[in-house]
Amino acid sequence: MNALRIGPGFVLASQRTDATPGFAGDKRAAAAALAEGATVLSELQEKFFANSRSGDTRKLLLVLQAMDTAGKGGIVRHVVGAVDPQGIDLVAFKAPTRAELTHDFLWRIRKRVPGAGLIGVFDRSHYEDVLIGRVRQLAPPAEIDKRYEQINEFEQELVDDDTTVIKVMLHLGFDEQKVRLAKRLDRADKHWKYNPGDVDERMLWPDYQEAYQVVFERTHTDAAPWFVIPADKKWYARLAVQHLLIDTLTRMNLDWPAATYDVEVEKARLAAS
Amino acid sequence: MNALRIGPGFVLASQRTDATPGFAGDKRAAAAALAEGATVLSELQEKFFANSRSGDTRKLLLVLQAMDTAGKGGIVRHVVGAVDPQGIDLVAFKAPTRAELTHDFLWRIRKRVPGAGLIGVFDRSHYEDVLIGRVRQLAPPAEIDKRYEQINEFEQELVDDDTTVIKVMLHLGFDEQKVRLAKRLDRADKHWKYNPGDVDERMLWPDYQEAYQVVFERTHTDAAPWFVIPADKKWYARLAVQHLLIDTLTRMNLDWPAATYDVEVEKARLAAS
Repeated sequence: MNALRIGPGFVLASQRTDATPGFAGDKRAAAAALAEGATVLSELQEKFFANSRSGDTRKLLLVLQAMDTAGKGGIVRHVVGAVDPQGIDLVAFKAPTRAELTHDFLWRIRKRVPGAGLIGVFDRSHYEDVLIGRVRQLAPPAEIDKRYEQINEFEQELVDDDTTVIKVMLHLGFDEQKVRLAKRLDRADKHWKYNPGDVDERMLWPDYQEAYQVVFERTHTDAAPWFVIPADKKWYARLAVQHLLIDTLTRMNLDWPAATYDVEVEKARLAAS
Repeated sequence: MNALRIGPGFVLASQRTDATPGFAGDKRAAAAALAEGATVLSELQEKFFANSRSGDTRKLLLVLQAMDTAGKGGIVRHVVGAVDPQGIDLVAFKAPTRAELTHDFLWRIRKRVPGAGLIGVFDRSHYEDVLIGRVRQLAPPAEIDKRYEQINEFEQELVDDDTTVIKVMLHLGFDEQKVRLAKRLDRADKHWKYNPGDVDERMLWPDYQEAYQVVFERTHTDAAPWFVIPADKKWYARLAVQHLLIDTLTRMNLDWPAATYDVEVEKARLAAS
């Protein structure tokens, strides 16, 4: 599904949100593929974690960005949630607190980058500061403008510190969002997931799409690339993110680490105990 | 499985580690029961989380303590891992760092207690400071002695702050530990899980059992009770912890929270958008 990696001249507005690039199956086939992938991903994650115990300093960071209801929560639940929680460092970034706002926008982000052997997952991220930050003019234009370069430098630092950075935008259609918000209003067990602010943001849809376009133009780098995933079909988006993680970990050529002790000596000690 | 809650005059040494109190089935039946329980637990957890979004301040803290290989990791993977990661705050406490050691032993613990609507899981905890702390004499006896009361006060504070505290000791047999450690030494894909220090601790088994006995005598309170779970059968221990969580959340009488906005007004706004 490398097709999801954006390329030069990428235009968000020309991307279909209901496509399933790289996957020919239907919803049912996707469910089977997701279950199969979970086993593969679990083993890769365990190897990744295991290696960190014997000195491998590599980290993995998955950044998730999207409009409301696009399915970030479902990715966390069904893709990330299928691997051992001990190997995951999940952070949901909310609106910054007053204390956080007294610092540089990357201050709170830096504190939460994953450690060795961990898959860090940012549910929203520093990109909010150039998305809602830009659309809602939460900072002067010159300040916003500076942030793109600061983000690139920050992400380059992460990469220099052995972090593989994968940035995912779940690309949802305007009409599909309406359907999903309506569902939250229709069902009493979904009311808690709805927030009147969701419609406020929805009314600024074109502004957000434009803000995303600028994000892609200014922060898609070789070091930290963007992947735009059509998200109208939840089952597709989940499978796509799962395979991004699988591909990334596979490329790390992970094997079980060799013992850092003398196995025979330990067998003898154990036997005598 | 309320039988697992310890009572007055509890003696650890007289408890079987291979029992399955409250469950008459075998391993196969337990697997089915665990899968069924996962669905129940997931829905309870989601309601618990949902309520926190509209002001419910309740928290849940599960403390896991055990000798090495007793299965804490499996509980985290298979019981906790079956619910939405967004509702879990998992903390694995390692040996304290030098910086942490310059503080009171509860300092690093307090920073990691769960927020509203979250299930906090402590994989090891402040009890290490009266377990390995006592056995290895990491602090003067008078200091260790004081800690039990400090723990009780700390846990009472948590309870006063609407936290339900469940403390679990996975009770593993000495012989079963040997089998499990041997397996880690036998398989190359398990070598990373073995640490020569595990046998060092194993040689102090009776001291640890005694340290646990003192823990139960001094920190089993109505506010924060202990549950001792026979752990020779992994499938039983997982099921038992799962049901402890289910029972605890069930007693909270959780329902989906009412909308904090006018549903009809929002439907109209959405329709117009």
